[in-house]
Amino acid sequence: MAKFEHHVFVCTNVREPGSARPSCTSDGKGPLHTLFKDEIRDAGIKATVRANKAGCLDQCEHGPTVVVYPEAVWYGFVQPGDVVEIVREHLVNGRPVERLMLPDGCINTARCMHRQV
Amino acid sequence: MAKFEHHVFVCTNVREPGSARPSCTSDGKGPLHTLFKDEIRDAGIKATVRANKAGCLDQCEHGPTVVVYPEAVWYGFVQPGDVVEIVREHLVNGRPVERLMLPDGCINTARCMHRQV
Repeated sequence: MAKFEHHVFVCTNVREPGSARPSCTSDGKGPLHTLFKDEIRDAGIKATVRANKAGCLDQCEHGPTVVVYPEAVWYGFVQPGDVVEIVREHLVNGRPVERLMLPDGCINTARCMHRQV
Repeated sequence: MAKFEHHVFVCTNVREPGSARPSCTSDGKGPLHTLFKDEIRDAGIKATVRANKAGCLDQCEHGPTVVVYPEAVWYGFVQPGDVVEIVREHLVNGRPVERLMLPDGCINTARCMHRQV
């Protein structure tokens, strides 16, 4: 074995109530990480693809946020119902799900259509 | 702004006492993540490099474990005193620190020199 073909980082960050920026989960866990793990297992790619919990990915206005490396594909506003499509299309078939991808201009920016400072 | 030039994931996982596999931290935090954040800030690369907490990276026998994407460089047995070198050499100057890198044969394997199942 060697490095992961895909390494999926799922933000599980939760902030204090009233924080200036939103949280990706309300409980520090959220449903997405477990759903990714289950779908990756069911797709038979568990040996080469890992779903990982991550702390704050700093894209809070686009959460729940997921990033897939090494290809550095960022997904935003990911809902539980999107996980099957990301796993089957992107992680199995190598076709990132464009409708869920964050534009480069939304990443690490002080201002975008989702973040008005 | 756009995607991170380097995205550093620091395992902060902690297991129950008596677990079959070791933990990367004893308290779910550990010193490494904060040290990376501080050194990245001091090196002036905070805008393009992020140090992120991560859940279990599944390389427990090589912990504390750190992986840097998109280049997928894995570091094992990272000690607090190693952080300055990783930041200055790898993240600033683009030269991964070979003495701390895990061989590909140690990653995602059921058996290596560090993992005897």
